[in-house]
Amino acid sequence: MKTTTDKFLDGRIAAKQPINGYRAATDPVLLAASVDISLGRRVLDVGCGVGVASLCLAARLPDVEISGLEIQDLYARLASQNASANNVNLAVHHGDLNALPIALKDQVFDQVITNPPFHRNKSVSQNAGKALADHETLGLSKWIALSLRRVRPHGYFTIIHMAEVLPDILQALDNCGDIRILPFAPRRGQMANRVLVRARKLSKTPARLLPPFIMHRGKAHDVDGDSYTKQAKKILRDAAPLQI
Amino acid sequence: MKTTTDKFLDGRIAAKQPINGYRAATDPVLLAASVDISLGRRVLDVGCGVGVASLCLAARLPDVEISGLEIQDLYARLASQNASANNVNLAVHHGDLNALPIALKDQVFDQVITNPPFHRNKSVSQNAGKALADHETLGLSKWIALSLRRVRPHGYFTIIHMAEVLPDILQALDNCGDIRILPFAPRRGQMANRVLVRARKLSKTPARLLPPFIMHRGKAHDVDGDSYTKQAKKILRDAAPLQI
Repeated sequence: MKTTTDKFLDGRIAAKQPINGYRAATDPVLLAASVDISLGRRVLDVGCGVGVASLCLAARLPDVEISGLEIQDLYARLASQNASANNVNLAVHHGDLNALPIALKDQVFDQVITNPPFHRNKSVSQNAGKALADHETLGLSKWIALSLRRVRPHGYFTIIHMAEVLPDILQALDNCGDIRILPFAPRRGQMANRVLVRARKLSKTPARLLPPFIMHRGKAHDVDGDSYTKQAKKILRDAAPLQI
Repeated sequence: MKTTTDKFLDGRIAAKQPINGYRAATDPVLLAASVDISLGRRVLDVGCGVGVASLCLAARLPDVEISGLEIQDLYARLASQNASANNVNLAVHHGDLNALPIALKDQVFDQVITNPPFHRNKSVSQNAGKALADHETLGLSKWIALSLRRVRPHGYFTIIHMAEVLPDILQALDNCGDIRILPFAPRRGQMANRVLVRARKLSKTPARLLPPFIMHRGKAHDVDGDSYTKQAKKILRDAAPLQI
């Protein structure tokens, strides 16, 4: 299996990942940036892949205690290797969210974060009833429901996904409140392509629909990366927190 | 009962409404502006109040056939009077969404629109489990579910409400797709305070989270109305359509 080593947070993190298949880009970095340690130190990263979200989180907040769950053996092994190589203490569990490893089964966490796998340019909307890819057969609603079980009472759940599945996400957030919805738009005035949703278990607080986070300056896409807005650069390169 | 006569759409519509209680402002105007006649001519306005949404809709699209449902007798009578006074053909039904008048019971519509009553500055989030006001006892989820029954297969349902109930709205949109979510923010960079959601019954099309519609220019609120953005003026004064 061919891998590349990719840098995140301006080189603070280097992660090996397979050339083919799901590859971490900006989503796990944004997800990690949204974690607020004042909401609790014990974090579970569901579907952690090669560990990019967890590693970025540890780079910014060394005091968090992070566990990762990954169903694919190759990715789980790379996550462990990446954690060692980056000197991060990440407890990687190789297993299925639907049939949890014993070590996770009776644990609950202050915060559960997830960047579920999806194929870019292919809808995974459950409303839309389209088929999920092989390793995504669990379905988004089930993925969220099972992830929520690992959140302690009054703890937090955060997900980043395609904006088009926002209805599916909100429909799955049973018994949650204080829901914050942060859309990400490629450019000002454009439709959101990603959405980050944080919910608090058992909360009765009303939801907030935040102004969109704009990723790129200008109107057209020229050279990727150089067109990032100041606020995007702060998060993707300077490891700044993402306020939600 | 004291009433005032208020003008909408730069005077195209004049509507009597009680001085106290729920008063139509910009929400019904925005709702009416979002109706696209190419999606069907037969429209039901659920909880039509004194008829402002219906009248604004008729002013822009004289070819729609509009029915209104209103539970409060006083409001229903004012809606009929307002329709006559504005020379609009509006079939006002006085009745309860939960116990429909015979005349509506067996009808379905191409489009159902609704601006459910709520108390400003008071949460009606169901997630939040807060009590609804007396005339709102039906609850938002039930209100939406019952409204959806009046939509023909593959027809459309559009609601405008407080942004904080977006999760409740999306949770109630059973068997719908092609969901378009349009946030309204008072000013650029501010949290949305309203949201307009349109859904298509039985559709499998993924959702769209649109860029926020900005109501006011500048950073602070000075004189109401004079600070409207160009796009808001077009809709509120020039009766332009609202693209969603």
